[in-house]
Amino acid sequence: MYFERFYDTPLAQASYLIGCQATGEAVVIDANRDVAQYIHAAEAQKLRITQVTETHIHADYVSGSRELAHLTGATLLLSAEGGPEWQYAFAASAGATLLRDGDVFSAGNIRFTVMHTPGHTPEHLCFLVTDGAAANEPMGIVSGDFVFVGDVGRPDLLERAAKFAGTMDAAARTLYASLAKFRRLPDWLQLWPGHGAGSACGKALGAVPSSTVGYEKRFNWALAEMIEEEFVASILEGQPEPPRYFAEMKRINRDGPALLHGLRRPERVPAARAGALLAAGHVLVDTRAAASFASAHIPGTLNIPLDKSFSTWAGSLLPYDRDIYLIVDDEARAVDEAVRDLAMIGFDRVAGVLGHDTVPVWAATAAAGQVAQTSVAELHDALLPRGVAIIDVRNRSEWDAGRIPGAHHVQLGTLDQRLEEVPRDGVVVVQCQGGGRSAIAASLLAARGYTNILNLTGGFREWSNAGYPVVRDGASA
Amino acid sequence: MYFERFYDTPLAQASYLIGCQATGEAVVIDANRDVAQYIHAAEAQKLRITQVTETHIHADYVSGSRELAHLTGATLLLSAEGGPEWQYAFAASAGATLLRDGDVFSAGNIRFTVMHTPGHTPEHLCFLVTDGAAANEPMGIVSGDFVFVGDVGRPDLLERAAKFAGTMDAAARTLYASLAKFRRLPDWLQLWPGHGAGSACGKALGAVPSSTVGYEKRFNWALAEMIEEEFVASILEGQPEPPRYFAEMKRINRDGPALLHGLRRPERVPAARAGALLAAGHVLVDTRAAASFASAHIPGTLNIPLDKSFSTWAGSLLPYDRDIYLIVDDEARAVDEAVRDLAMIGFDRVAGVLGHDTVPVWAATAAAGQVAQTSVAELHDALLPRGVAIIDVRNRSEWDAGRIPGAHHVQLGTLDQRLEEVPRDGVVVVQCQGGGRSAIAASLLAARGYTNILNLTGGFREWSNAGYPVVRDGASA
Amino acid sequence: MYFERFYDTPLAQASYLIGCQATGEAVVIDANRDVAQYIHAAEAQKLRITQVTETHIHADYVSGSRELAHLTGATLLLSAEGGPEWQYAFAASAGATLLRDGDVFSAGNIRFTVMHTPGHTPEHLCFLVTDGAAANEPMGIVSGDFVFVGDVGRPDLLERAAKFAGTMDAAARTLYASLAKFRRLPDWLQLWPGHGAGSACGKALGAVPSSTVGYEKRFNWALAEMIEEEFVASILEGQPEPPRYFAEMKRINRDGPALLHGLRRPERVPAARAGALLAAGHVLVDTRAAASFASAHIPGTLNIPLDKSFSTWAGSLLPYDRDIYLIVDDEARAVDEAVRDLAMIGFDRVAGVLGHDTVPVWAATAAAGQVAQTSVAELHDALLPRGVAIIDVRNRSEWDAGRIPGAHHVQLGTLDQRLEEVPRDGVVVVQCQGGGRSAIAASLLAARGYTNILNLTGGFREWSNAGYPVVRDGASA
Amino acid sequence: MYFERFYDTPLAQASYLIGCQATGEAVVIDANRDVAQYIHAAEAQKLRITQVTETHIHADYVSGSRELAHLTGATLLLSAEGGPEWQYAFAASAGATLLRDGDVFSAGNIRFTVMHTPGHTPEHLCFLVTDGAAANEPMGIVSGDFVFVGDVGRPDLLERAAKFAGTMDAAARTLYASLAKFRRLPDWLQLWPGHGAGSACGKALGAVPSSTVGYEKRFNWALAEMIEEEFVASILEGQPEPPRYFAEMKRINRDGPALLHGLRRPERVPAARAGALLAAGHVLVDTRAAASFASAHIPGTLNIPLDKSFSTWAGSLLPYDRDIYLIVDDEARAVDEAVRDLAMIGFDRVAGVLGHDTVPVWAATAAAGQVAQTSVAELHDALLPRGVAIIDVRNRSEWDAGRIPGAHHVQLGTLDQRLEEVPRDGVVVVQCQGGGRSAIAASLLAARGYTNILNLTGGFREWSNAGYPVVRDGASA
Repeated sequence: MYFERFYDTPLAQASYLIGCQATGEAVVIDANRDVAQYIHAAEAQKLRITQVTETHIHADYVSGSRELAHLTGATLLLSAEGGPEWQYAFAASAGATLLRDGDVFSAGNIRFTVMHTPGHTPEHLCFLVTDGAAANEPMGIVSGDFVFVGDVGRPDLLERAAKFAGTMDAAARTLYASLAKFRRLPDWLQLWPGHGAGSACGKALGAVPSSTVGYEKRFNWALAEMIEEEFVASILEGQPEPPRYFAEMKRINRDGPALLHGLRRPERVPAARAGALLAAGHVLVDTRAAASFASAHIPGTLNIPLDKSFSTWAGSLLPYDRDIYLIVDDEARAVDEAVRDLAMIGFDRVAGVLGHDTVPVWAATAAAGQVAQTSVAELHDALLPRGVAIIDVRNRSEWDAGRIPGAHHVQLGTLDQRLEEVPRDGVVVVQCQGGGRSAIAASLLAARGYTNILNLTGGFREWSNAGYPVVRDGASA
Repeated sequence: MYFERFYDTPLAQASYLIGCQATGEAVVIDANRDVAQYIHAAEAQKLRITQVTETHIHADYVSGSRELAHLTGATLLLSAEGGPEWQYAFAASAGATLLRDGDVFSAGNIRFTVMHTPGHTPEHLCFLVTDGAAANEPMGIVSGDFVFVGDVGRPDLLERAAKFAGTMDAAARTLYASLAKFRRLPDWLQLWPGHGAGSACGKALGAVPSSTVGYEKRFNWALAEMIEEEFVASILEGQPEPPRYFAEMKRINRDGPALLHGLRRPERVPAARAGALLAAGHVLVDTRAAASFASAHIPGTLNIPLDKSFSTWAGSLLPYDRDIYLIVDDEARAVDEAVRDLAMIGFDRVAGVLGHDTVPVWAATAAAGQVAQTSVAELHDALLPRGVAIIDVRNRSEWDAGRIPGAHHVQLGTLDQRLEEVPRDGVVVVQCQGGGRSAIAASLLAARGYTNILNLTGGFREWSNAGYPVVRDGASA
Repeated sequence: MYFERFYDTPLAQASYLIGCQATGEAVVIDANRDVAQYIHAAEAQKLRITQVTETHIHADYVSGSRELAHLTGATLLLSAEGGPEWQYAFAASAGATLLRDGDVFSAGNIRFTVMHTPGHTPEHLCFLVTDGAAANEPMGIVSGDFVFVGDVGRPDLLERAAKFAGTMDAAARTLYASLAKFRRLPDWLQLWPGHGAGSACGKALGAVPSSTVGYEKRFNWALAEMIEEEFVASILEGQPEPPRYFAEMKRINRDGPALLHGLRRPERVPAARAGALLAAGHVLVDTRAAASFASAHIPGTLNIPLDKSFSTWAGSLLPYDRDIYLIVDDEARAVDEAVRDLAMIGFDRVAGVLGHDTVPVWAATAAAGQVAQTSVAELHDALLPRGVAIIDVRNRSEWDAGRIPGAHHVQLGTLDQRLEEVPRDGVVVVQCQGGGRSAIAASLLAARGYTNILNLTGGFREWSNAGYPVVRDGASA
Repeated sequence: MYFERFYDTPLAQASYLIGCQATGEAVVIDANRDVAQYIHAAEAQKLRITQVTETHIHADYVSGSRELAHLTGATLLLSAEGGPEWQYAFAASAGATLLRDGDVFSAGNIRFTVMHTPGHTPEHLCFLVTDGAAANEPMGIVSGDFVFVGDVGRPDLLERAAKFAGTMDAAARTLYASLAKFRRLPDWLQLWPGHGAGSACGKALGAVPSSTVGYEKRFNWALAEMIEEEFVASILEGQPEPPRYFAEMKRINRDGPALLHGLRRPERVPAARAGALLAAGHVLVDTRAAASFASAHIPGTLNIPLDKSFSTWAGSLLPYDRDIYLIVDDEARAVDEAVRDLAMIGFDRVAGVLGHDTVPVWAATAAAGQVAQTSVAELHDALLPRGVAIIDVRNRSEWDAGRIPGAHHVQLGTLDQRLEEVPRDGVVVVQCQGGGRSAIAASLLAARGYTNILNLTGGFREWSNAGYPVVRDGASA
């Protein structure tokens, strides 16, 4: 048996290639849209991808299953569980085979036993993997967004992200029942989950790539002994705000993602065209580091640094219906990373790239924007006494765990929809945990015409480290 | 004055960026479709491309002028000379400024004086370049396909490639007159031509990038003292067969090349899909070296090695109206080179790339094709006495300079249209100068169902080196 | 807890970075010489490498522990077990801390409990890893070359590779005792071994990166119930021949590997210098594919294709005391891969690289060598009846499992030392399983002056697939 | 004839490969130390480098002639002109052939006629290049540092850089005589000089790669009609200060540059080691952009941004006898560019590279340094009235052309030797033309313990653009 895990850091997402070396057949589970990686890996092992499947209808990235099956000629295997509302709309047109609890399919000597594990989503499946050449029992379970290392898949996403109102309580109870099934699996099975630390599909995912059923039974909070009510209350509390694009993903993945036909390399646009592009109504995303953006940027551009959180904030803040131009420090990297990262979450309209000279070229003839900074000492000693407004853009769980007195909570992903809560007069300090998200917030507010924004360097972390007062009760402003 | 030459080796084509460092304005002349190179170069010099122009309607590559002007917002400057038939059809829609003989335009301190030099084409312009900050006389001439180093632009292309019947004699006489104008330029001007060695726009281009007016007057055969009749006869003789795609280029460049909107990176297709793609009627081009193809290939694929002649033979042998899949040795290189090279001559339908394992994967389940080889000794001693057919696929000038007795001449670029001249019975030896083009020919014939083909290793060069008999009179078979 | 596995494919070797995100401390276990990978990974996670350790004195690659500790300032932790003969000679000079069974060290909240597990080597350690922030029991065991997925580390290497005569029987018994300790670990622990499929440190390693203690207890042949005698006989049987360089590695890693001070990029040598380099006594390794080498090569060069087995055969066939020049297809790849792969096993004398034109340049003025091929049909029908010699260069276990009647067994790694067993007269067919190793063997014999060698295309696999007679009893020729 | 120009941007230096396609022989003139580029280019054209020569003993980079001749086996051709003091010390040991005025050597059909043209240096040669296959007169002249486009090679470098006192007046007169010889060459020859815009080997080099003899006769200031005294005065005036490393280069190139044996890729050092390296006395060069350095840096590091001037300032400010560590933004680029750029001017002791996280990692535990900035308005309105010191670090010619009243001139290249001229009390403003060099100066002063430095943003350019008073007479402070 050949086993390879693929991990996409911006998505904190895992997919798996599992094949039989004796017959050359292989299965890919939970492919993302960067399908070439699976094709390359399979060819390096002299395997053919004969089946493509996925654990559920993903909400956090565009599925690559359809594309991969199309390119390889593999059979597409899709869940038939979950009820009429959660059937894959493109299953028939793609010639997919439908899977139900208890089904078994094989790639050579490798057997995959399907296990229906609803909760995170109604149609969710897991796959028990048995290496028939070496053993008569499974080696592990591909668990998707059911059980993670140290956490379980949140059951509130359909309600909170995809807006299926009133579903999250029932889903939590369904998940509770599915976990009882999980407890009956043998301890010594490996656990191969669909996400790692940083994913918004749970709240406390570990940074270890895999685990075992026995270890999770012992140390995963969600598998501890508790009654259903306690579980439901716990699982629904403290979940991170889902990025806005999740709703879009869910729809795309159920209805059938468009075939990519390869990634387009966006055109190189001269730095001097930045103004004309803005004037024409295009979206310009400045992907440089926050410090560079703060010291000089083109007014009207949005700062989403090309780091590990790029996908999350791009998915939360960018529109799907406009052309996007990227301002980049390093063009080779932009083509390799940003275009790919955006395609992974469905942004196919990257129309151009502007190089590292763009802001200097702009600044030679027009005023560059700057993001003013304040420090926790200045905030505490000088600004707060004068009655400044503070906008805390962190997640709700961070807010609940402690905040600056007088702050107002507007999570970054919702800021653009809640501008009316940000005063246009007086000084407004935006703040997050360490200063990264508030820098994005400050760029967004500047692009929306605010001129009274200060970014809090060091954020809440530095504030609390400095021993300044912190509000910790559950009361929200 | 800033001056930079860009040279595209597969096209043997030169373009120029000339700018004024004092004002930051710059002009690009004869841009090809890889427009990012000009944008990068200008930005590195802190120049803005403010004007884009070209010497004539090119026949050997898709012009990048329109694309570059669009991306940069530069003014497009196009020839208005040449008569009604040779007007740029998209000049008005692209907001172009028209140029006539004697016109002057400037980029900062740099002056460009337009000189109408018909012959190669009716609308052909040259540009005398004066660095006004340093001198009151020109520094050189951007000569396009008028005067090359050691040669002049052929006047027969419209007739021979674009099928404007009966034009080449008149064009040769027009060129003769234009050359008289050239002789009046001062000796000390630099000459910056549009092509280098290997271009099919002339027959004897030198491998030195630039020259001077004085040197060419002294040593260029076409500027030697001769009467018009003598010049016309000489210039029309011995020109290489134009690749088939030239006609298409001419039309595209006059009517207006499509905007690229970036290059698409073709999808990675699994090696195992090769058979299905062929069955679906797609074109599979095997870009590996001829030796690899000869030892094993997928029947039905065409072998065009990804070397300096790739553009030429792709342009001669591939269709514009079908999807093209590339079989490659080295995928990174294929994306960087082959896709770009094909886009340069208007092939925008590269739909996928298959990796270096493709042929072994095929061979594991089906019979691989092979190209049988013969040697000059075997041909001379064993095959010729038995009455073998020989197909010589070289250019006419090579054929005229000497050939194997009994050979039949079918230039490679026309082979697919003249299959009836290649016997399907008996042994057929295909042959060129060194063995490269005949390998392509052999792959084409195999793809067309021939099973009786031998490729002559070493070609005519080895034949004549071996002292075997050569036919040298002008008589063609 | 942060956990990352690094896998080096040519060495089939795994190393691990395990760190505490709360304090930023991290440990690297079994670093190879490509130490930059650990530094980059740690920095990407904002971790500092504070401790470097290894499971044992490796025999199959140069350890990077010393280099990594030097560069990072980390503490070096080395085994003190194994008796006086197996103490690290450089421990004191490197300021190392010595580890004994039962010792515990920590990186932030992560605890590492040392477990002495002799057998593969006397000083061998395993590390039980406990994530103190999440659990009070271990999550898994870093098992080095003790227990692999599906196999255990061979106890015969010191005798067979490092020539410590008479040690392997005792080592097998020691390993048997260590495995009893392993059986007492809980089922649900993850197992993170030091090698994967293809390593010569065992005979049946699986291609799944990790396992669990419980799964191995159930399905690993070496953990099945058996008495000591039975285990000893089984474990010593069918082990692959260790590559010749293993002895050198063992010495280097015990005495202290030299600090690299960065990799040198070898000079680019003109193709035309190949003859002069050979004449000067340097070693020229042709890293092109076997098919290319077979069709044309420079006489005197050795063919070791740059594929997954490059390290193995380079380590078996190249000298440590001469300058090595590489003939490569693709120079970027050679610098990135071949130089690194060779450094990993201690070859620091790569003096130059010759490009893909080297053989054609040679062939233009001198006779190129060729490797003649034969097929299984030709061998069976035409050669064998005439009394040809067959040299089978496979591993002993392959030989034992079946061979061509009349073949003589000389494993490839020993061929250069056993040339007297290869006749210089008459036809000699070299043969392996699929044709890859015998191609290397053929190149070695040609470089040693043999002119009577045929390589068997398809090897034993094709021979047996064709239904030709196979000898299967244990008797060796 | 094949002709290729190689241009190294940081050195503003040109070298040439000129070969005969008929015989495959080729000559390289003025090779720099990146010798692989010539080997690759020659092989791409199927040429062999058979001779290597240079126009003179270079002062601005390490010559690659010896290395290239060694690698290729080519004959080394060196000047025997210039008198006993200027003989190449390694000519005999390298088996070089000596060249004198009027000598002729050939590569196939290409003839090189040697012309002794002293002035810039005593031994300086030019090469008239005749393509014997096409013409009986030269096509152009490889002019080294004799005649540039728009300028001539300065005759004062031996005195000003290499400290041969009292030689520059005589050298200027010798140059005057050599120029008279130049005037006798035909107008239509191409001119292929050894440097382009930005080189410190002249004062007014143009940015056009080549010219013609006739154009230079007409428009080069140094070839205008003037008497010797006038020429001598003009040529010695306004020359840029030579970088400090020029003296070292001159010695190395005369005595014989060391063979490189390939470039070493420096080790990747963890960011956290920066403090330890500084404490151990190593040199840390921060190659990030000046703005990044100004906002946060490690105290004690020197800021030399990795841009077009990197070689110049590295050569002026770094020691040859200490280990150098680079702090870089982008590691791939550092290895590709910085290490190469430093090797080109003889710095072979780049011992390590620290990544883009280095300064943040430092700042997490210790105070980061900052470079305080001032503006021309603040300087004019607030600082000058209070009696601030101004240090102008520009070249003498810029200083002479206009300066801020009260400024003191200490050219950047000499600053480290003239620290006593920079007050340690009171506010000191450092200033250059645009702010780039003064940023380097500020970093140098900070590393030397100054805490009273302000960098003038925008420099003299912005000062004069703002209309503030400028001193323009020749009087220096």
